[in-house]
Amino acid sequence: MELFYSSDIQGSIVRLDSVESGHLVRVLRHKAGDEISVIDGKGSLYRCTLLNADAKEAEAQVIERVYPFGSHPYHLTLAVCPTKNNDRYEWFAQKATEFGIDRIVPTIGEHSERRVFKTDRIGKIVLAATKQSLKASLPHIDEPMSVKQFISSCADSKALKLICYCSDELAQRTSIKEALESLGDNREIIVLIGPEGDFSQGEVRAAMDSGWVPVQLGESRFRTETAALAATAAVYFHFL
Amino acid sequence: MELFYSSDIQGSIVRLDSVESGHLVRVLRHKAGDEISVIDGKGSLYRCTLLNADAKEAEAQVIERVYPFGSHPYHLTLAVCPTKNNDRYEWFAQKATEFGIDRIVPTIGEHSERRVFKTDRIGKIVLAATKQSLKASLPHIDEPMSVKQFISSCADSKALKLICYCSDELAQRTSIKEALESLGDNREIIVLIGPEGDFSQGEVRAAMDSGWVPVQLGESRFRTETAALAATAAVYFHFL
Repeated sequence: MELFYSSDIQGSIVRLDSVESGHLVRVLRHKAGDEISVIDGKGSLYRCTLLNADAKEAEAQVIERVYPFGSHPYHLTLAVCPTKNNDRYEWFAQKATEFGIDRIVPTIGEHSERRVFKTDRIGKIVLAATKQSLKASLPHIDEPMSVKQFISSCADSKALKLICYCSDELAQRTSIKEALESLGDNREIIVLIGPEGDFSQGEVRAAMDSGWVPVQLGESRFRTETAALAATAAVYFHFL
Repeated sequence: MELFYSSDIQGSIVRLDSVESGHLVRVLRHKAGDEISVIDGKGSLYRCTLLNADAKEAEAQVIERVYPFGSHPYHLTLAVCPTKNNDRYEWFAQKATEFGIDRIVPTIGEHSERRVFKTDRIGKIVLAATKQSLKASLPHIDEPMSVKQFISSCADSKALKLICYCSDELAQRTSIKEALESLGDNREIIVLIGPEGDFSQGEVRAAMDSGWVPVQLGESRFRTETAALAATAAVYFHFL
């Protein structure tokens, strides 16, 4: 099954933008009358009949709405400091989308070498991965913010808040597996992954002061993006 | 800590090949008398004193051997059909090495589009990932073989043998998490991941007939290489 994406669904009429329309009509050669499947990025899949095979603005008629479609039984936010090499962050975003993730926040740490991050490419990658992995909900990509800004933005969140860092210097860390076992009925998780240079002591203290749980991902020494995917996989398998 | 690799350790003398020697001497500018850490790819780390800072064939004197170093508490073989795009297989190999894996077998399925696979690049990637993730044991990369050859080669293995495929058509699949809970004291696991076109019925039957357990990785629809990494992560977190 091939999924298309539309942000313009009004009543029973679905309009595709020029990128999706071009793919639908020029690449896949769909014709009026064909049945197509469109996601809204908010969890719904629409089975539609193609009305107008316009390669610039295709229109389709909704036959059936399926909600939720391709959902996962948790709400996961990963806040990850940008990696030196952008490709590594992009594959994390792609693979985490295949597992199932709800929100990706590029956070800039005090020890981050990379302090600028463009979110536009990640948005495209995450959309492609959402369609490819047959999901209907598009992970939200936040604009970059500092680690401390992110920590304070989570102050009122009821989520289980986990900070992965590399040393036991400031606090004894539990394994992420144990930490997840403390979730109970809570299905909302936020995980914060530091930069190559790890978090500053101030960042770790700020997290501890606002109730974040310090965790480790086991004995392996992961690159930033692998640690982020490992945390995503740990949550995914916890709910399996 | 920077690790170097040597396949030439005799008594207390360690010799590095030209690639490792060049990196040691030209890039990192090590001098005779410096302490360096060398892995043998078989699980041992050697703390050494550099005797001869030769950029072609550096020699070092062993001070101390650490065994096992950077090991994991299981023995994992992943047999994975080559992906259409080689990069995707290479990142699986790199990331699986960061988690901890012992053997990677490129298997050619009856539905594999890609039927040729070169192992030399993977070897280099896995060596770099082993050193980067501070491990001393190098995953073994087999030469490609057919899925059925691989299944028969495992006939006498005492490992828990798991085959991940996409449909319940031929057999009810349990989740990989449940399957791993049946390990008991066994720490040896073999996981077989099919090609983009999935296994043939004959391949699945051959596996079932030799006691393989059909498993699924949950609701998400993974690409081949993501499925392979997901299985690696499931084993890693099972033993965490």
